Amino acid sequence: MALQRAARYYGKEDVRIQMILREPCGEGQVRIEPAFVGLCGTDLSEFTSGPTFGPTEPHPITKEKLPVGMGHEFSGIVREVGKGVTGISVGQKVAIQPTIYCSECGACKADAENACPNGGFIGLSGGGGGLSEDVVVPAVACVPVPDHVKLDIAALVEPLAVAWHAVAASPVAQEPNQQCLVLGGGPIGLAVVQVLLAKGAKKVIMSEVAAKRQQLAKQFGAHHVLDPRTFDLVAVSRELCGGMQGPDVVFDCAGVPASLKTACQAVKSRGTVINVAIWKQEVPFNPNWLVMKEARLGAVLGYQRRDFEGVIDAISKGLIKPERMITSKIPLGRVVEDGIKALIKNKDRHVKILVDMKMH
Amino acid sequence: MALQRAARYYGKEDVRIQMILREPCGEGQVRIEPAFVGLCGTDLSEFTSGPTFGPTEPHPITKEKLPVGMGHEFSGIVREVGKGVTGISVGQKVAIQPTIYCSECGACKADAENACPNGGFIGLSGGGGGLSEDVVVPAVACVPVPDHVKLDIAALVEPLAVAWHAVAASPVAQEPNQQCLVLGGGPIGLAVVQVLLAKGAKKVIMSEVAAKRQQLAKQFGAHHVLDPRTFDLVAVSRELCGGMQGPDVVFDCAGVPASLKTACQAVKSRGTVINVAIWKQEVPFNPNWLVMKEARLGAVLGYQRRDFEGVIDAISKGLIKPERMITSKIPLGRVVEDGIKALIKNKDRHVKILVDMKMH
Repeated sequence: MALQRAARYYGKEDVRIQMILREPCGEGQVRIEPAFVGLCGTDLSEFTSGPTFGPTEPHPITKEKLPVGMGHEFSGIVREVGKGVTGISVGQKVAIQPTIYCSECGACKADAENACPNGGFIGLSGGGGGLSEDVVVPAVACVPVPDHVKLDIAALVEPLAVAWHAVAASPVAQEPNQQCLVLGGGPIGLAVVQVLLAKGAKKVIMSEVAAKRQQLAKQFGAHHVLDPRTFDLVAVSRELCGGMQGPDVVFDCAGVPASLKTACQAVKSRGTVINVAIWKQEVPFNPNWLVMKEARLGAVLGYQRRDFEGVIDAISKGLIKPERMITSKIPLGRVVEDGIKALIKNKDRHVKILVDMKMH
Repeated sequence: MALQRAARYYGKEDVRIQMILREPCGEGQVRIEPAFVGLCGTDLSEFTSGPTFGPTEPHPITKEKLPVGMGHEFSGIVREVGKGVTGISVGQKVAIQPTIYCSECGACKADAENACPNGGFIGLSGGGGGLSEDVVVPAVACVPVPDHVKLDIAALVEPLAVAWHAVAASPVAQEPNQQCLVLGGGPIGLAVVQVLLAKGAKKVIMSEVAAKRQQLAKQFGAHHVLDPRTFDLVAVSRELCGGMQGPDVVFDCAGVPASLKTACQAVKSRGTVINVAIWKQEVPFNPNWLVMKEARLGAVLGYQRRDFEGVIDAISKGLIKPERMITSKIPLGRVVEDGIKALIKNKDRHVKILVDMKMH
């Protein structure tokens, strides 16, 4: 029982399923048996063009470097509780909040540990990963999930928490009665649609190219779904918002130069654009896009524990029903072929692929 | 008495002093005898590379096209009050709020008439200008100035109102106890320093290259004045703010690619960058500058009547003493040589040049 099977990231296009040692469960730690593990855009980027998050030098906090464990969107069951851990019991369902942070920098001290410059993620930066039969994590990473919430749904809490965090940073947090445009219907864009509707947003318009994702946006309750190749988004979203002004808030979940410009052009006077994407390089931007309408551009990064708690509460109450996001379940042994490569090849068919750790 | 002397803008490098007809003072209008008229960066841009604001086709609101009257930063005395005007009397000192707007668009209906897409400015877009012996303006453009405030000071209300509006759009409006960095010590940057101090900001750091402007920033009370050629602004401003994090708010009054990047890099986690510049073209920008610290970029444009009222009240109470901004006074006949061209050539010597309409 000292050995276990795990997926490990070695570098670009190099993911290996190996037998590795189980870690001891020390003070303040919890041993998890992962149940379901989502694959996300960051995993794809690491595979096709990384390492970006994967540490090539010892990570300042985990002290690990490549190879590292994979899988940062996961649910599981508590199998062992380390010394000094309270409020978590063996057998409990949990979702893992994978943020790693230093607790000492200005960001951490200012309740912004998700923006810790030394930070990282379990499953990307060392510290094990969800794609293993057994993983030991800090107790603070374990967010309890009620028994009536299924473990596959609990693996969707992480992407939904990104959306929860983004919506919390937008004016919807103060006043839900807003008209919103969401650019990009990938897992995060679809999560933003669900969170906005759970929060009571007045109108949610989604822009997306892929048919499967358009269909999902409608099923999740988006009031309007537009294909940006067919519609003039700026003009049509303004019309859909009453004709006088554009949407109050635009969420850019596409993160390409065209979506940044469209977001700024579509938003109303004094409106807010929230960037929910990670960028790779500098892009052309004219601050006058904001100036001429006194708009603002906000940006968010990851999530905090309270976002996980908010999502789990909303799922528990039936305010968010994310099951349709899951477009496939695969066994660990197929993670590269039927997981990462399937997502790269078939964006039109897939949204969220889960690795089912019990499947063979 | 039907004719008067006025400066008129014909196009690039073409400003003429001419005799023109006085306008009738109609319903809802007020006749002003301009006293002092400031020259600003927009006037310089129109001269060197315009027309940008100057309408080459009939302006949607003023219906005028080039040539148009010049001078949009001005004070004066009320000489005639049109039918239906209340609250304004002959002989009263006023500062002119030159914004032109349509009152019908979404921005205007949302109390953001300064961002009216059809808008413009008296002195740039038609509707006369301050650089004339006599100008007729809408009553709503006249903001009363107390008798004890001098008319040259009243001509500084316009640039100070830009700063007042920018600070009002920043977190300083909710909580004055903030540490602020101001990039660029031209008239607007120096105005932002003064407004921040009048509002009670905890710390004001100015970055500026020109010696004269550095000196003025100190005289206005900036706590620290840094030359960005000598100091690493990001590191030093962080040190000056306590070492853990950068400034709470950064005002970019320089409006160049380097200042945009510095502003984003210097601001603290979840801090705010306020762009107070007008841009000419797209520039390289990486949204990750904001993402990695969850910062936001706000933008402001011009001012509203309440900003003029706020500035006049602060000047009246002695909270803002802007006289040192005036580096020269010139007669109307010298507006091109000793005004526009002097500002272009001697940025290190000048801040605000006023045309004194009584000087010969």
